[in-house]
Amino acid sequence: MSIKGRLHGIGVGPGDPELLTLKALRLLKAAPVVAYFVAKGKKGNAFGIVEDHLEAQQERLPLVYPVTTEALEPPLSYEAIIADFYDGAAQAVAGHLDAGRDVAVICEGDPFFYGSYMYLHDRLAARYEAQVVPGVCSMLGGAAVLGVPLVYRNQSLAVLSGVLPEDELRRRLVDADAAVIMKLGRNFEKVRRVLAELGLAERALYVERATMSNQRIVPLDDVDPMASPYFSLLVVPGEKWQA
Amino acid sequence: MSIKGRLHGIGVGPGDPELLTLKALRLLKAAPVVAYFVAKGKKGNAFGIVEDHLEAQQERLPLVYPVTTEALEPPLSYEAIIADFYDGAAQAVAGHLDAGRDVAVICEGDPFFYGSYMYLHDRLAARYEAQVVPGVCSMLGGAAVLGVPLVYRNQSLAVLSGVLPEDELRRRLVDADAAVIMKLGRNFEKVRRVLAELGLAERALYVERATMSNQRIVPLDDVDPMASPYFSLLVVPGEKWQA
Repeated sequence: MSIKGRLHGIGVGPGDPELLTLKALRLLKAAPVVAYFVAKGKKGNAFGIVEDHLEAQQERLPLVYPVTTEALEPPLSYEAIIADFYDGAAQAVAGHLDAGRDVAVICEGDPFFYGSYMYLHDRLAARYEAQVVPGVCSMLGGAAVLGVPLVYRNQSLAVLSGVLPEDELRRRLVDADAAVIMKLGRNFEKVRRVLAELGLAERALYVERATMSNQRIVPLDDVDPMASPYFSLLVVPGEKWQA
Repeated sequence: MSIKGRLHGIGVGPGDPELLTLKALRLLKAAPVVAYFVAKGKKGNAFGIVEDHLEAQQERLPLVYPVTTEALEPPLSYEAIIADFYDGAAQAVAGHLDAGRDVAVICEGDPFFYGSYMYLHDRLAARYEAQVVPGVCSMLGGAAVLGVPLVYRNQSLAVLSGVLPEDELRRRLVDADAAVIMKLGRNFEKVRRVLAELGLAERALYVERATMSNQRIVPLDDVDPMASPYFSLLVVPGEKWQA
């Protein structure tokens, strides 16, 4: 029986190529196959972070997201299409693993913190040896470039998605000592309105593409809600603990 | 006028020395002074992570926590003693900065995620140039070694402290899609009871000193509540998103 390859889910950090860990770099350089999720026609942020470290003989395995621009009618659904896509991506990775080749799946931020790697892990980790290398997530990259301590001592932190309904967002924000709101994009105006209602707008800080070369820090009032990219986040830092 | 030194808050990751970032390593090697918080008589986890990278001529500045074993009577309080301590630590760091020497303050995990560096940042960042290098936090190190995806897609994550009162812990856990509970130690039995009441005990995973050489992963039922160390955490992963 031949020996199967190993699956490595590797967090490559929030964008700054220097935020790669020593472990990620070592496993990346040793991987015969480097796989990454990417939008059609793009290079991909994760690939851009690591590409200078790769040798020509390392195989690149881009996993290209399906384009879903048209409205879908039953039985078609976004969920079904994306599930099919992940099935196919897992199969492509498994082909290499079965042939005895280790595959490094690179992932922006951290693989288990909203990472696309999770969908491969759930499909493959029971059948192959899998190891995850944690990475600096975008939330911590964001706090660092904003220069603001995120949570003190015994404070609680709520990590929320901008897609939450307005009343749920309000309820959860009221309850948290500190919060990070991700996946803004088209949800930005709703989130800004809720923050203003709760009196949190003065405390909130906004950053786009934290630690990337095209990073932007913008005062909350000046954000154009139509132009807020997916890789933006809002930080409501915890009240300073006066030690 | 002489040029002041720069303050660098450097996250060194959760314990595995390979989880240091390239940026942390570069700034650390370049720092004339390396400061770190440490308990009396200990080497300190953060210092242990980086010590092999330091040269003899780099000055070490241990900031030794005061020992508070006796019960304190007014006007003495833990808060007052620790505030005095941080004031003194900031003064010691400022002495080097005023003399034009850069100071790297190393911090386990991430500096702004419950990091002790925050108390120096709050005292010094207005007066000196300060930069923070984010690190892999213990929560992500924990999820990685447990091999479990933490949060999917639009799920929310609650990061909670084990010191929270039982009813508050219960209320916040009910509301979260996924949760991480830190600062267990003496609070472990209370937290385990709440998880059991909410039917979350089967989903919860426990790890001590994640990614450190003496890491332990223990089934929840087998944890000795009297022996749970400070560097332990509980992860309640989000329900798998069936894409």
